[in-house]
Amino acid sequence: MFVRNAWYVAATQNEIAGKMLARTILNEPVVLFKNGDGEICALEDRCCHRGAPLSLGDITACGVRCGYHGMMFDRSGKCVDIPGQTAIPARAKVKSYPVVAKGDYLWIWMGDAAKADPADVLDYPPDDQENWPRSNDVLHLKASYVMVLENLMDLSHLSYLHRTSIGSSETDSANATMDVKRTPRGMKFLRVMRNADAPQNWLKRYPTGKKVDRWSDFEYVAPNSIMQFSGGVNAGDYDAGVRSGSHLGRTLHTVTPETEKSCFYFFNKADGYTKFEDPGRERTWKPLTEVFKEDAHMLEQQQLRLDNFDPKNLMDINTDVARVQMIRVLNEQIRQEQEEMQQAQERKQPSMQAG
Amino acid sequence: MFVRNAWYVAATQNEIAGKMLARTILNEPVVLFKNGDGEICALEDRCCHRGAPLSLGDITACGVRCGYHGMMFDRSGKCVDIPGQTAIPARAKVKSYPVVAKGDYLWIWMGDAAKADPADVLDYPPDDQENWPRSNDVLHLKASYVMVLENLMDLSHLSYLHRTSIGSSETDSANATMDVKRTPRGMKFLRVMRNADAPQNWLKRYPTGKKVDRWSDFEYVAPNSIMQFSGGVNAGDYDAGVRSGSHLGRTLHTVTPETEKSCFYFFNKADGYTKFEDPGRERTWKPLTEVFKEDAHMLEQQQLRLDNFDPKNLMDINTDVARVQMIRVLNEQIRQEQEEMQQAQERKQPSMQAG
Amino acid sequence: MFVRNAWYVAATQNEIAGKMLARTILNEPVVLFKNGDGEICALEDRCCHRGAPLSLGDITACGVRCGYHGMMFDRSGKCVDIPGQTAIPARAKVKSYPVVAKGDYLWIWMGDAAKADPADVLDYPPDDQENWPRSNDVLHLKASYVMVLENLMDLSHLSYLHRTSIGSSETDSANATMDVKRTPRGMKFLRVMRNADAPQNWLKRYPTGKKVDRWSDFEYVAPNSIMQFSGGVNAGDYDAGVRSGSHLGRTLHTVTPETEKSCFYFFNKADGYTKFEDPGRERTWKPLTEVFKEDAHMLEQQQLRLDNFDPKNLMDINTDVARVQMIRVLNEQIRQEQEEMQQAQERKQPSMQAG
Ligand code: FES
Ligand code: FES
Ligand code: FES
Repeated sequence: MFVRNAWYVAATQNEIAGKMLARTILNEPVVLFKNGDGEICALEDRCCHRGAPLSLGDITACGVRCGYHGMMFDRSGKCVDIPGQTAIPARAKVKSYPVVAKGDYLWIWMGDAAKADPADVLDYPPDDQENWPRSNDVLHLKASYVMVLENLMDLSHLSYLHRTSIGSSETDSANATMDVKRTPRGMKFLRVMRNADAPQNWLKRYPTGKKVDRWSDFEYVAPNSIMQFSGGVNAGDYDAGVRSGSHLGRTLHTVTPETEKSCFYFFNKADGYTKFEDPGRERTWKPLTEVFKEDAHMLEQQQLRLDNFDPKNLMDINTDVARVQMIRVLNEQIRQEQEEMQQAQERKQPSMQAG
Repeated sequence: MFVRNAWYVAATQNEIAGKMLARTILNEPVVLFKNGDGEICALEDRCCHRGAPLSLGDITACGVRCGYHGMMFDRSGKCVDIPGQTAIPARAKVKSYPVVAKGDYLWIWMGDAAKADPADVLDYPPDDQENWPRSNDVLHLKASYVMVLENLMDLSHLSYLHRTSIGSSETDSANATMDVKRTPRGMKFLRVMRNADAPQNWLKRYPTGKKVDRWSDFEYVAPNSIMQFSGGVNAGDYDAGVRSGSHLGRTLHTVTPETEKSCFYFFNKADGYTKFEDPGRERTWKPLTEVFKEDAHMLEQQQLRLDNFDPKNLMDINTDVARVQMIRVLNEQIRQEQEEMQQAQERKQPSMQAG
Repeated sequence: MFVRNAWYVAATQNEIAGKMLARTILNEPVVLFKNGDGEICALEDRCCHRGAPLSLGDITACGVRCGYHGMMFDRSGKCVDIPGQTAIPARAKVKSYPVVAKGDYLWIWMGDAAKADPADVLDYPPDDQENWPRSNDVLHLKASYVMVLENLMDLSHLSYLHRTSIGSSETDSANATMDVKRTPRGMKFLRVMRNADAPQNWLKRYPTGKKVDRWSDFEYVAPNSIMQFSGGVNAGDYDAGVRSGSHLGRTLHTVTPETEKSCFYFFNKADGYTKFEDPGRERTWKPLTEVFKEDAHMLEQQQLRLDNFDPKNLMDINTDVARVQMIRVLNEQIRQEQEEMQQAQERKQPSMQAG
């Protein structure tokens, strides 16, 4: 089940540079591109004539011309040319999706277009390449988007799955404080490890000492995004309100379902410490993709194990507090949207009993 | 749905040169080969003993010996030897299919053998290698055979899908006249582009001028074949009855369903101008396979887009006139055959009500 | 359908040397390994927390630590550590399977653990590396385990499928005597070819003459194993009770279902003639894997032909006598176990009518 009335990342802006991108989103075939006039288009990737993918056609000034028999569609999905005939029937159209370019991404609305408000598109991480240089990547996973979100809302996995990469020690992990609370758009947690060992690569890179306070502030914006603010300061400084001096990052994690069992995981990190660094040092971005591939492998295998398994046989543990809260928020949003769609349906087709 | 009572191309003659060919046709596993006596055999590719593919066995004088436990079958499918026993029960047999070698092909009958008349096998293109040298090829497509037929019955796609290969200009295309009519075995269309631009490669190859009349005469023989006669003459000559002098070809397109969503597309072109050509010139055949690969890619992607999509949401346009007529003929033939099978079934098992 | 209350080979001992092995057995994901204390563990390969495969975790002294969030399980499947909490609920556990190391194998019990008796594990072939040096291999087949057993119980296929490798001549095959009888644990057959041609490689390897008596004594131990004793002696010697002097082997064939349509075929041959051989000669083991690959290819193709085919359309022949008997024994064992499970179920939940 998906929430349809929400902005999902359809692609990075780079992915449509000079070409059309065909991608299945929430089970629907979508083609994304910039038309000749430079406007971003997101259309159903299935011509209304014989079903050919529009992504195999050609970009025109106003939209796209189907590569099979040449029907042309503008960015609203309306057919504006049918070779061999002058009259264009009203039903000659394909679905078009609201789309917004913001930050490094194209955001798409798969639900009721009347409800799509560009103001709701996330404004994160900071669009400030000088002070917060960003980098991003995307992984295609054969796993439910829900599993990716759950993975992020339960940082206890860092000490195990990422032990050899970004993980903290089990002891520091066990001593972490954890605050979870609802927010208007979802929920959030704040996890702080005080007086913890600084990771080896922090010692090389940052001026902070061997003992640090580390925080992870994760806000889940339902149904699909997590805004992460995390960093480190010298031990003792966190409670004094210091929020910079060592590792410092704002990361947007956002997951777009392809199907029920596959998704695109987009991550985008703004590094707040970079400009203080020795410019000779290597960027640490590449390893982050490597780290997330550790997750990807685990999640795909997890998906296989759960394919024919009743989740009621699974159990929650203490460290699941944020994850469980997140699932509750997501399920509530799905339930609510289903209910609204049901009601809208009934308003259109009053039931027999109403007569 | 398939029409069963019809001749389908099972393979080219070349495909069984010195070997057995295993191929699924209309969802049934078939093995094709020449027995030791030189007779063509088309048998169920599943031994009646334990189901082994006979195509893994050995050719014998009368037929094939199963490679698993050695049962031997003649070309009628009757078992003629069971190792270790002398009595051969009547039910020791596999299905055999009527098969006819004609032209470059082996034609198979997948329906009621009593209805198979070799005289119905198409006699096209002309079997005259000197004046009409033929060449043929086959493509395996992950798309319904119906889509391949539809593709051929709607030449408006030439200006788009084949724009860079065999396509005519959009203007010439738009000015084409189109006559569609029913025929005893199906339907046909005649499409003529008068005073059109001669394609670049025609200018190099033929003595005709820059302006030509081009015709395409396509006869659909239900359920699976299309006989194409097309060519060009100097502009103005077509209506004067001239039918040669430039590009001239007779092509048989015939499609054999493998499953509901995959097929074998056989095409066979006889070139009527070849003998007038400068022998030093390169044959133009190879490009034709390349052209049809453009169709193949489109059709396979189209199939994917329609897999979970209600075709009622698609729409016809003016250029579909021949395609729509063709589909009507095909569906009518399917409906009629289903009805006959139903009735035959009822004659065998009279219904309760009849009592 | 599978018999669950039986010992199946889960793996060779080698397959868990210093690592965890993940394998699906009877449709269940299993992880096999030796814990730090050297005990063999066979656990459900799906953590009870979020379903991660335990095979992606780390081996500990008592068992395994999940690689996702660190829960630790001992070899009984009981959770003994949950990071971040002290209380361990009773339901924190994964399924564990009885497992026995014997000979070259790890044997697993997929059914009711209360019925698992290690004494029932086969004691075959002889555990005597000096006089009966063993070698073994395993093939993964995309075919039902039943087909593998059937293949072994019908040696008539040797003259056809293995004609160019280990097959005997068709005449010798046809003259073979065949005795089939029930046994307490299944059934067995004895097949003797008297005064048969010695295979070429026997002539090179053994001191026997050109004419030999060959015997194959196959005992099927339901549901999954076949103990083979076969060899050759000089023609005439077999009926005089001689049982060695030429080719001599004891082979265990045992098949473990992965799913309904795939399995692991383990074979293990003890060679009783080896010690009399010229040590300079090449071992003949490798060819045996090659021979069984001939079976594997045939069985996988057979499986495909039977996937959508009613087996009632197949027929038995005379040489099927042992195979048919074997199937009867297997089906009876399946039926009986299903019945017992049904009754046990009813004892737990007395039917409404009983009230
Ligand atoms: S399928 Fe697009 S124009 Fe025909
Ligand atoms: S399967 Fe063909 S003879 Fe046995
Ligand atoms: S999935 Fe194993 S500890 Fe979480």
